[in-house]
Amino acid sequence: MNYPNGLFKRQKSDINYANRGMSLEEDLNISNQYYLENDIAVIYKKPTPITINHVDFPNRRDAVITNAKFKIPSTTDYNGIYKGKYIDFEAKETTSKTSFPLANIHEHQIRHLRQIVKHGGIGFIIVKFSKLDRIFLLMAYDLFSFIDSEKRKSIPLSYFKAKGQEIKITLRPRIDYLKCIEKIGDVYD
Amino acid sequence: MNYPNGLFKRQKSDINYANRGMSLEEDLNISNQYYLENDIAVIYKKPTPITINHVDFPNRRDAVITNAKFKIPSTTDYNGIYKGKYIDFEAKETTSKTSFPLANIHEHQIRHLRQIVKHGGIGFIIVKFSKLDRIFLLMAYDLFSFIDSEKRKSIPLSYFKAKGQEIKITLRPRIDYLKCIEKIGDVYD
Repeated sequence: MNYPNGLFKRQKSDINYANRGMSLEEDLNISNQYYLENDIAVIYKKPTPITINHVDFPNRRDAVITNAKFKIPSTTDYNGIYKGKYIDFEAKETTSKTSFPLANIHEHQIRHLRQIVKHGGIGFIIVKFSKLDRIFLLMAYDLFSFIDSEKRKSIPLSYFKAKGQEIKITLRPRIDYLKCIEKIGDVYD
Repeated sequence: MNYPNGLFKRQKSDINYANRGMSLEEDLNISNQYYLENDIAVIYKKPTPITINHVDFPNRRDAVITNAKFKIPSTTDYNGIYKGKYIDFEAKETTSKTSFPLANIHEHQIRHLRQIVKHGGIGFIIVKFSKLDRIFLLMAYDLFSFIDSEKRKSIPLSYFKAKGQEIKITLRPRIDYLKCIEKIGDVYD
């Protein structure tokens, strides 16, 4: 496989792909690359939103940003298209072994997911419990029903087990999250 | 109207909205905000892609990026959802009075638009001839047919007049580009 754009510079060898220890973000980037190269879907992570305060121009070609700050994102990190459907999701890791703290997702992002679902898009979150090495996909409507009915500030692992779908790491793609969307396809047809 | 997120800090007064002189990007941001607030569509400009080389942490809350570079974008700048459809476009201004230089759009972005259309999304470009103060929307398939059949490195204004749709600046939203999508709706239904 060929990964353009220097996306995976940290990667020393393709041989390690099946091994553990990659971040959820890296795994998702590789999976999205796989979906793209195999004409399955076109899904990208959005760049990190920043506010640029100062740029140096040592010469015409090499602009260097010398002062910038991170902004709170108003949308989720990932979006794109799959079988003509708009896809939108947020991906997070937690070190907790028992629950996923909702503080990990900005309120803006929840509001964004609500808008997406309202407009007919497919929204979800992917959560990795890194100490357990388990990854779950939870559809946005199940996320909303938890938030709207529970007062708790974190979603217990048991809720992911009951309502979510566990994703096992595979070789190609690493995280085949679109398979989960297939399973719940009826909801959208 | 209320514009959250400090998006329009440069704006001193709402009264100036109908005036000329705003950049295409500013006009589109305001239009997208209008679409969002009025529950018409959820479309955002993606953040500028950068490679972060160094971040200072003077304290926990105030991370400052002190060295970063601009990256060539692999996708278009704008995407989102409208009536359940995936929308994707690039917006560019040109100072030319006669044609739009294709060098303004990265090859990656053209490839991206081809993928989007192939997967059932609605792709287009919005081009502003700033010296003429005229804005056109050109559907991606008309862009491709120009690129694939012509050897020219710029698209003449006459092509936009013949194949594109001109968008007149209005008050709310400033640039009602979704109206153009309505007109060609049959193509997608």
